[in-house]
Amino acid sequence: MPPESLKGLKSFFEPEAVAVVGVSKTPNKVGSMIFRNFKGSGFCGRVYPVNPKYDKVFGERCYPSVREIPGSLDLVVIAVPAPHVIDVMSDCVAKGVKAVIVVSGGFKESGPEGAALEEKLRRIAEGSGVRVLGPNCIGVYNPYSRVDTIFLPEERLARPKPGTLSFISQSGALAVAMLDWLALHGYGIGKCVSYGNGCDVDETDLLLYLADDDDTDVILLYIEGVKDGRRFMEAAKRAVLRKPVVAIKAGRSATGASAIMSHTGSMAGSDEVYEAAFKQTGVIRVGDFEEAFDVVKAFMMQPLASGRRVLIVTNGGGAGIMAVDACERSGLTVPELDEDVKRRLPFPPHFSRRNPIDLTGDVKDEDYRTALNEAFLKYDGFDSALICILPQVPNLTFRVADIIGRANKVSGKPIVACCMGGAFTLKLTREIESRGIPVYPTPERAAKALSSLATYNETLMRLKADIKGEKEEH
Amino acid sequence: MPPESLKGLKSFFEPEAVAVVGVSKTPNKVGSMIFRNFKGSGFCGRVYPVNPKYDKVFGERCYPSVREIPGSLDLVVIAVPAPHVIDVMSDCVAKGVKAVIVVSGGFKESGPEGAALEEKLRRIAEGSGVRVLGPNCIGVYNPYSRVDTIFLPEERLARPKPGTLSFISQSGALAVAMLDWLALHGYGIGKCVSYGNGCDVDETDLLLYLADDDDTDVILLYIEGVKDGRRFMEAAKRAVLRKPVVAIKAGRSATGASAIMSHTGSMAGSDEVYEAAFKQTGVIRVGDFEEAFDVVKAFMMQPLASGRRVLIVTNGGGAGIMAVDACERSGLTVPELDEDVKRRLPFPPHFSRRNPIDLTGDVKDEDYRTALNEAFLKYDGFDSALICILPQVPNLTFRVADIIGRANKVSGKPIVACCMGGAFTLKLTREIESRGIPVYPTPERAAKALSSLATYNETLMRLKADIKGEKEEH
Repeated sequence: MPPESLKGLKSFFEPEAVAVVGVSKTPNKVGSMIFRNFKGSGFCGRVYPVNPKYDKVFGERCYPSVREIPGSLDLVVIAVPAPHVIDVMSDCVAKGVKAVIVVSGGFKESGPEGAALEEKLRRIAEGSGVRVLGPNCIGVYNPYSRVDTIFLPEERLARPKPGTLSFISQSGALAVAMLDWLALHGYGIGKCVSYGNGCDVDETDLLLYLADDDDTDVILLYIEGVKDGRRFMEAAKRAVLRKPVVAIKAGRSATGASAIMSHTGSMAGSDEVYEAAFKQTGVIRVGDFEEAFDVVKAFMMQPLASGRRVLIVTNGGGAGIMAVDACERSGLTVPELDEDVKRRLPFPPHFSRRNPIDLTGDVKDEDYRTALNEAFLKYDGFDSALICILPQVPNLTFRVADIIGRANKVSGKPIVACCMGGAFTLKLTREIESRGIPVYPTPERAAKALSSLATYNETLMRLKADIKGEKEEH
Repeated sequence: MPPESLKGLKSFFEPEAVAVVGVSKTPNKVGSMIFRNFKGSGFCGRVYPVNPKYDKVFGERCYPSVREIPGSLDLVVIAVPAPHVIDVMSDCVAKGVKAVIVVSGGFKESGPEGAALEEKLRRIAEGSGVRVLGPNCIGVYNPYSRVDTIFLPEERLARPKPGTLSFISQSGALAVAMLDWLALHGYGIGKCVSYGNGCDVDETDLLLYLADDDDTDVILLYIEGVKDGRRFMEAAKRAVLRKPVVAIKAGRSATGASAIMSHTGSMAGSDEVYEAAFKQTGVIRVGDFEEAFDVVKAFMMQPLASGRRVLIVTNGGGAGIMAVDACERSGLTVPELDEDVKRRLPFPPHFSRRNPIDLTGDVKDEDYRTALNEAFLKYDGFDSALICILPQVPNLTFRVADIIGRANKVSGKPIVACCMGGAFTLKLTREIESRGIPVYPTPERAAKALSSLATYNETLMRLKADIKGEKEEH
């Protein structure tokens, strides 16, 4: 049963009737952009433009206020200057709207006057039961329902296709940069939501909502601070039990923490406290977006690792050694090959029969198959594999992608790859990723991603043991 | 005056007459590839194929041995199976060749028999004065003289244009992956040299050579071990005084160190000893290739930073905070803006007038100009600037690249940028980099690169003070 705080959240993501307040005749104004997103994106519900100045905008009847719109409204998107937001919000309450997204800035983040305005907004929401996302936010992008409240044109911001990663961000700009990056690389998204100042709906509500969302397999969180630490931790535990949660917490440094105040008006809090909270709840903390995507990609594409023993197969000795270093630094182990396995490897003498297995520059596609067959499929000493490929050598082809993909499927164990190089390498990377194997440009990044597959598995075992222990106590 | 050990090294990089031993009629065999590289790359000297089996290969007269080639030879590239290398080497000595590159593997890295063979090779070299690069190496790529001993086809390995970064690598495969990466991104290279097992010419000789090389402004080093620690440290100090030296030392972990033995047969040594040696000599140690390039790119494109105070200008609050965190983690400082400067910034109230200066999603190109003019050009409180751009907003254009480029030139201080996003972001990145500003995909990576510009400046001051101190003592 979803908690009380999740009431109405569905209307943000899957509304049937929507109004956009602040649509003007200028196509590039915020309200107009949002209205046009709904009209042009394939959204199946009804959309109404609101602006008391016009009778018609973009060929559609324009309403003077949300109260004049016929029928019920699930979602109202407000994009008018801050001082007018309260009036529109009162109209929304009068109309019985379920959810409101306040895109407008000029609230808590702008000083004491804005803070007073935001407090007013919060009180109206609290008293009425209308859920509010924002203010000072980008709102929602949901490629499944085609809700898109992002006021940026498609030529600047490509929208990713439907996928299984969902993203909660306090910062709108970062949410947008991430969507753009995902679209460029062909990755999909479940839901993206930016909650800005979070006067009502906050990171914890959204985390709980996505924990139970069927379109979401992995949750990525960018936060500057949380409102209620205890509530957040309970929500995080609940979410982590269902799916991996990866978090970026900004404001590690004192100067960074103080800059947060003027961004979203949040208290950053002590970084040590967050670190401990993440650890306890099993949230995987990452340092930046690159690391976040590296980890998320592994979760989206691969099963969990049931242990930390990694087989490394490489065609470059140096890359293999760097992979060993990287694995050990990430808390993985690189155990020696079993003697029987070594004997079974039918390689020429200059190939290295140890872990890493080094197939050298003379490698052919089939050598990767042989190595994986003998040391990974027929032998049970490894929990995962890290495959390094330096594709500059003459005898490797795209067939190697099939070989790795097959070993992944047959073994049921996670495999990640590291491909280093230029244009041909990018092509091979796409081939390998299309077989479901995440590819990274350095052994470091591949190892970190692999490690998170083991860490989350350990976390799940720990959390489940805790629950069992608690039940037995009662 | 160059030390004795540099004797003959020039012949590896700028030979006039070259022989390739092991050229066959099969175009993709190693020797044939190398011969065809010389013929097809614009190399201006003479090139002779050697193979006792043929009178002619690729339409050219083929010689039975190097001894039969008329005139003197500067460089011989040997690509025959290991057991035959000694005979060819003896021919080279008889011929009075200056330098030999042994591409062939099957020496120290392959076990006791190979080690014995390598020792024989080393002794012949030592007794004769012929310098040997390798065995088990890729050799040399020099886009200026067009020496290219890399046996990989252009379709797999793009060759970078002439540039100022030179690269010394114990591993051939990594050298090749790096060249490929550089070419893809349009960066140039001075010289690339892989020395493999290093039986004669080693990392220290090459470091000394490149220290005095006019085509080299930055040296990047990939090493698994060094032969003579004291000699290496002296060479490193000498090189660091002339140009930045960035190093990747593999084999940090115990397992990694033991894998090195079967790769190039080197002793990895204690990682703590290397860490201390790098620190003392001012070599900048990096963790992986991505970090290496990030740092190298900053050195290639920007002046040094005379201090650690960074101005951050952003159009996304979250990115700004992450940049602050990243700067402080990299040992940089993000001091508050001067009150006078704050007053001079003619920005709307919702822009943040602190450090980071946050121009928000409403940013126009000119706002970056204003911020840089007032806080960086007219005010002397910062040693460098980190510019974050989230280019998804509607009013930013490529003009912003000119603005940042101009601030960089006028100030004479280093600027790096961080651009996060998708396809349009990549285009803007290219525009900004074409103005000489290095661009990174995360604030973390931008800050690390910026920090290295300050670190190297401090190193230079320390080394120069040491020298002055030593002189005064005498």
